[in-house]
Amino acid sequence: MDEHSSDPAKIYFSPKVSNRDRAVFEAGIALGMVIHQFMGIPIKFEEEVKLLEKVIEYAILSQPFKSEAKVSISIDIPKDDNPYRYTTLRSRNLDVTIVTSYGKTKVKARLRYIPELDYTLAYIEDIIEEE
Amino acid sequence: MDEHSSDPAKIYFSPKVSNRDRAVFEAGIALGMVIHQFMGIPIKFEEEVKLLEKVIEYAILSQPFKSEAKVSISIDIPKDDNPYRYTTLRSRNLDVTIVTSYGKTKVKARLRYIPELDYTLAYIEDIIEEE
Amino acid sequence: MDEHSSDPAKIYFSPKVSNRDRAVFEAGIALGMVIHQFMGIPIKFEEEVKLLEKVIEYAILSQPFKSEAKVSISIDIPKDDNPYRYTTLRSRNLDVTIVTSYGKTKVKARLRYIPELDYTLAYIEDIIEEE
Amino acid sequence: MDEHSSDPAKIYFSPKVSNRDRAVFEAGIALGMVIHQFMGIPIKFEEEVKLLEKVIEYAILSQPFKSEAKVSISIDIPKDDNPYRYTTLRSRNLDVTIVTSYGKTKVKARLRYIPELDYTLAYIEDIIEEE
Repeated sequence: MDEHSSDPAKIYFSPKVSNRDRAVFEAGIALGMVIHQFMGIPIKFEEEVKLLEKVIEYAILSQPFKSEAKVSISIDIPKDDNPYRYTTLRSRNLDVTIVTSYGKTKVKARLRYIPELDYTLAYIEDIIEEE
Repeated sequence: MDEHSSDPAKIYFSPKVSNRDRAVFEAGIALGMVIHQFMGIPIKFEEEVKLLEKVIEYAILSQPFKSEAKVSISIDIPKDDNPYRYTTLRSRNLDVTIVTSYGKTKVKARLRYIPELDYTLAYIEDIIEEE
Repeated sequence: MDEHSSDPAKIYFSPKVSNRDRAVFEAGIALGMVIHQFMGIPIKFEEEVKLLEKVIEYAILSQPFKSEAKVSISIDIPKDDNPYRYTTLRSRNLDVTIVTSYGKTKVKARLRYIPELDYTLAYIEDIIEEE
Repeated sequence: MDEHSSDPAKIYFSPKVSNRDRAVFEAGIALGMVIHQFMGIPIKFEEEVKLLEKVIEYAILSQPFKSEAKVSISIDIPKDDNPYRYTTLRSRNLDVTIVTSYGKTKVKARLRYIPELDYTLAYIEDIIEEE
């Protein structure tokens, strides 16, 4: 997109803010949204997991300047008759890759659990500034 | 189900609690969950709405003693190129019907926006106590 | 309260629904709300925990027919300089006691983690039907 | 802070990522968290609003590289005896200012409702790169 013609919110940002800053900022917003919107969903069905991955992808793409989203959920679903044996989505179950685009800058960011940190980290995998 | 054999949590409830009380209580939990878990999801795609209805149904059925769930989302999706024109799920967009079963009691409950109250009401449509 | 005069939503409930059913139903809604609204809040400060307990109590009391709420959060807050060492609220950190009142019926319900079940259980501790 | 010594997650980021990128990214995460974590909280008490502002500030400061947070909630609380007359927190009720710090870069970002856009916008008010 051409941010000059089609970003009606651009005037609210500091003039110091570059296209790169915007693409990075939007990536942060997207991953903060994913973690805090979807945690806690009760899960007992494999089919539910597949649909939820798609719903999260669509939710990401619904917000401004998100051009790609890929969500993979890795979760153990209990298999027994105990009615209390289900699980709930936690951030550590998610592996999310997004691409934001602003002007000619693209940012590829990711959310995944890092065992060495014992933390579900949101981080930037790549920044591409086209000519 | 036969709650005597298969409800390991029954001992934590007061002995005053009947099967009917349990079915009603579980209906309340389910509808409280739906409202507060799913509000705020960004939505811009018709396909997302369809998948989200299914995800909410599965989430309801994942929790104990829920035997049926039907979710319908009524929401206006903006149709223009403004990147800030998407919507987010609100409780008033939901029409949810659930059935809980405990012992031989079934409770049919519903969540929907009531214009006269200007309120998204969770209420009980029927209680069926079989012989 | 006198539900005949002051519950504008009563007409939407099945005529089979008793005051007891209503008090039980409202207790379920309250505990479903607590679990799914507050999970995931980032926590690093003791003072935050104290304030959050009060906020959850107020949130419970904001909804209809809730007359008492007591929330206690038990959570380990990491004490080191690693910026990634904070915690997030999980349902198992909560011990919530509520009382709902409808007509002359009161229901005392609780949410707490039960180690034997490895589950954060919502259950009814008492039902009091006054003359 | 000195990010070389005390950011154990730095190695997961692309080497293209500058301190400025990090400070911007963390600002986005914080504001995405606020919107999607706190929406939907039932509110009926003035005191609850004051405590909730503090809880949100603490939640922001709990996450990495957040150095300042100021939250103001503007919300109308219904004043009548109807038990269904309470409100729930929406993103448009929030005015949030945060400062993130990474290395010698600070980013000041804000979340507030912009009437002209009919949108609760997260935006960057300033970027300060010290010598």
